[in-house]
Amino acid sequence: MLRTQSPSFRSLVERGSIVRVAGAHDAIGAVLAQNAGFDAVWASSLEVSAARCLPDASVLTMTEYLESAANMQKALHIPVVADCDTGYGGNLNVAHMVLEYEAAGITAVAMEDKLFPKMNSFAAHDHTLLDTEAFAAKIRTAKSVQSTDDFFVIARTEALISGLGVDEALRRCHAYADAGADAVLIHSKLKSREQIEEFLRGWENRRPVVVVPTTYPDWHVDEVERAGVSTVIYANQGLRATITSLRDAYRTIYETGSSVELEGTIAPVSDIFELQQLAAWQKLEA
Amino acid sequence: MLRTQSPSFRSLVERGSIVRVAGAHDAIGAVLAQNAGFDAVWASSLEVSAARCLPDASVLTMTEYLESAANMQKALHIPVVADCDTGYGGNLNVAHMVLEYEAAGITAVAMEDKLFPKMNSFAAHDHTLLDTEAFAAKIRTAKSVQSTDDFFVIARTEALISGLGVDEALRRCHAYADAGADAVLIHSKLKSREQIEEFLRGWENRRPVVVVPTTYPDWHVDEVERAGVSTVIYANQGLRATITSLRDAYRTIYETGSSVELEGTIAPVSDIFELQQLAAWQKLEA
Amino acid sequence: MLRTQSPSFRSLVERGSIVRVAGAHDAIGAVLAQNAGFDAVWASSLEVSAARCLPDASVLTMTEYLESAANMQKALHIPVVADCDTGYGGNLNVAHMVLEYEAAGITAVAMEDKLFPKMNSFAAHDHTLLDTEAFAAKIRTAKSVQSTDDFFVIARTEALISGLGVDEALRRCHAYADAGADAVLIHSKLKSREQIEEFLRGWENRRPVVVVPTTYPDWHVDEVERAGVSTVIYANQGLRATITSLRDAYRTIYETGSSVELEGTIAPVSDIFELQQLAAWQKLEA
Amino acid sequence: MLRTQSPSFRSLVERGSIVRVAGAHDAIGAVLAQNAGFDAVWASSLEVSAARCLPDASVLTMTEYLESAANMQKALHIPVVADCDTGYGGNLNVAHMVLEYEAAGITAVAMEDKLFPKMNSFAAHDHTLLDTEAFAAKIRTAKSVQSTDDFFVIARTEALISGLGVDEALRRCHAYADAGADAVLIHSKLKSREQIEEFLRGWENRRPVVVVPTTYPDWHVDEVERAGVSTVIYANQGLRATITSLRDAYRTIYETGSSVELEGTIAPVSDIFELQQLAAWQKLEA
Repeated sequence: MLRTQSPSFRSLVERGSIVRVAGAHDAIGAVLAQNAGFDAVWASSLEVSAARCLPDASVLTMTEYLESAANMQKALHIPVVADCDTGYGGNLNVAHMVLEYEAAGITAVAMEDKLFPKMNSFAAHDHTLLDTEAFAAKIRTAKSVQSTDDFFVIARTEALISGLGVDEALRRCHAYADAGADAVLIHSKLKSREQIEEFLRGWENRRPVVVVPTTYPDWHVDEVERAGVSTVIYANQGLRATITSLRDAYRTIYETGSSVELEGTIAPVSDIFELQQLAAWQKLEA
Repeated sequence: MLRTQSPSFRSLVERGSIVRVAGAHDAIGAVLAQNAGFDAVWASSLEVSAARCLPDASVLTMTEYLESAANMQKALHIPVVADCDTGYGGNLNVAHMVLEYEAAGITAVAMEDKLFPKMNSFAAHDHTLLDTEAFAAKIRTAKSVQSTDDFFVIARTEALISGLGVDEALRRCHAYADAGADAVLIHSKLKSREQIEEFLRGWENRRPVVVVPTTYPDWHVDEVERAGVSTVIYANQGLRATITSLRDAYRTIYETGSSVELEGTIAPVSDIFELQQLAAWQKLEA
Repeated sequence: MLRTQSPSFRSLVERGSIVRVAGAHDAIGAVLAQNAGFDAVWASSLEVSAARCLPDASVLTMTEYLESAANMQKALHIPVVADCDTGYGGNLNVAHMVLEYEAAGITAVAMEDKLFPKMNSFAAHDHTLLDTEAFAAKIRTAKSVQSTDDFFVIARTEALISGLGVDEALRRCHAYADAGADAVLIHSKLKSREQIEEFLRGWENRRPVVVVPTTYPDWHVDEVERAGVSTVIYANQGLRATITSLRDAYRTIYETGSSVELEGTIAPVSDIFELQQLAAWQKLEA
Repeated sequence: MLRTQSPSFRSLVERGSIVRVAGAHDAIGAVLAQNAGFDAVWASSLEVSAARCLPDASVLTMTEYLESAANMQKALHIPVVADCDTGYGGNLNVAHMVLEYEAAGITAVAMEDKLFPKMNSFAAHDHTLLDTEAFAAKIRTAKSVQSTDDFFVIARTEALISGLGVDEALRRCHAYADAGADAVLIHSKLKSREQIEEFLRGWENRRPVVVVPTTYPDWHVDEVERAGVSTVIYANQGLRATITSLRDAYRTIYETGSSVELEGTIAPVSDIFELQQLAAWQKLEA
């Protein structure tokens, strides 16, 4: 099989046990995440923009983010969850986004309540939020436009990122759930997960909750699940590992004057062929 | 400076000392190669197709290879050398390729003398070559279409890959030089570099020679230079390092239940910001 | 409804009455064909390449032809039949084509038995054909790769275009039907339709037949149907009408010094808004 | 010559006589405008979005608008002036836009002082403007980022479109000129050109002025020039002529049952070949 149908992200969430998601920006990374056992792949806006050496600040367009997400989905038999920033503008952009992502076979998107153009949540910046009702309108727009029941819209609040506190995060997430969000994502850049746990206690599991433990990485998946989380996203560790390994590999070749020192430590060319499904493709030759 | 003009690849070759080139498939990889000291980046057909989990067999189109090469060039202040397979078809495709790559700011391309659609040189396959005169016509076409004097066309022979021997490789490369090739690339998949060295002795440095020591990695750059080589390409080690590191990183997160074990070993998020030139971009904000 | 699901092309063919198809190259042309009553739209390789001012000679890539076809399909509630030239190379390219076109929601493609790179059938050129068995292998590849039962593969023979005669056309079409083609397309550039009618008598309706009466335009659709044809494609008249009207419009503005003379004869801006579904989109605003 | 270098738009403006520009959305339309005698082509946001059957409301992305503009520029030997809406967001988007358009060989862009996402100026809508200083910052950003002296930034005010009057239009245009705009564009949707003429009298030709006489089409180019205008854009008449001719052509084929009635009135296939430069391309064949 050159291409396999993936289950929808919704079907994973409804399974009940925690859904584990890894970030990636291209198909080969996504397939390696899949091969490691992950349930789904996060088409990370930070990773996709970084792969282009451009800031994660709404500079790349929906066209480019969608292309990355679609290329990943085509290579996978698990679903992509697409990080769709603010929905790329206003209500019309959100509607267009849903039409285009659904047409590309993506079954889940996340939108956040920042202003467009956004800035990456970990960057020092004034992270002003969109008015709650305006963001709720975006969610209603997204839900009204989707053509399949399965399509899944995650509403991400940046209330904690912007320093507004847990009560405001809860207030916003309730409004987003009322507007039809299929899940909420609560994000923080503190070194501690305390605010997240406080949010979870206050939320009472009204809709599935998604977390992204980038700055509080010592939260074991079993604890995450016990805390009432539906989905955990390891958003950018893959890219960070890639940077380190590329830096080392290029430096070693350059400084030692050959690639021989790397040979034992890097994947053989045959591993590339396997990830390309070369054998399956070659069967098609005359 | 958000974007810097790159010197042409020709200007590097004419400098005299050996030109060291590293393979990449996206801008972040390309910039890491640049940061390690490399003189140029090889927009590797194997890497670009592998990043999409598709075989390196003329399945992706020129549009997609060009997009990758152009995205790399935009992020660099060193030149990209674009691996352009067979020139993507016949003479008209070659002409279109030159027009499009030049318009995208690429200053060097390599074309090989396989039949279209090609198969990756390291794959088990019947690597039948195009007739010498037909490939020479492609080179003449490329050279007649380029609009700048700087544009550099590398003629790659797969004579050794297809088992035709050094004499045929030399005969072909002479024909390609006569047709106007700016350099020749001699490729082999043997574990030894003997055929390459025999080729270099026979060639007498009529045009610059490019080598790709993937299967004979213990060839130190100083020896390569002394053997009369102009340019050495480390074509796919970056991708192979990436595969290993992603496999490890995803497995570690999945199996240990968190990303905490990775934290000391992977690049911090601030390294991503630096590669995105975030500080320079943020200066543009009001 | 911002976007409507289209029936498959197969469902139209199975309806029994003749299927009328008009050529287009972009969504607005496609929608105007739909509004005129056509059953389907031909994503014409000649039109798409002409819109770019590039020859219809495999110079544009599958990526670009697919993008055009997909953009049309998204705007329509009737199916697109995609003109896919030779399948863009060999068997692997054909397989990739089917995967990509199906993923984009296209339900029918046509492939022709010319060599890659092809040249437009109406251009003076040596239209050498691919070996029958090699083309049959492409059809088998396409049919083996499709993931839905509905996907429809039209095998187009250029036997008459290349001067090989009706018997060879029949022999080839039988081989293509044996290989699994869902329909055959018989093309001619003679001013008379005699060869086409001879083909139809010899074919005995084994599979649906598609015709393209560009050079014998006086064949009324009722006669076409009575002759046993399943589908008729008016392939490029839209583009030819566009050229005439643009030539006139631009000349009038330039020569008269204003656009006032055109005002009564060209569509008002409100017609553009209607084709853009502006009212439906504006309903999404807050 | 398959491709010809175009002069910059700036060089046309500096010539002194009025610059006549026609709107288009694809290369064939652009070349027909060029052939009619126009000096430059307006890559119209309304036309490009209409060709996709999507509203002119920042729904298509910069990626798609740029692709259309670049495809036109490649086919022309006159410059494209790209209609870049609001600059696609904030200052960072403007900077990215300038980098990308310059890299694609575009020598002039126009930005307007509406809020992002914008709505087409002729659509019934609340056309709220961006604060003057914020838009001036966008102009300063654009000018600070351009890498060639030739790149030309047109600041378009929608003050009249939004009902703010001529004084506010003048006030804004002065601020935009102070910020470095190379020209100003004054747009109105009234049936009369009175406000435009009042603006021109008040402006005293501090920077070149661009006008778009869509709703006051009876303004002869000689009068436009005498009124002190530098550049006149006939923005969408080409598309409107195309709609009418396609509607008629498709209807005629459908209703008469064949295309024979069209034959005398539409361009022959040989005209398509000429626009594709087929003869020049065929010379490249072996």
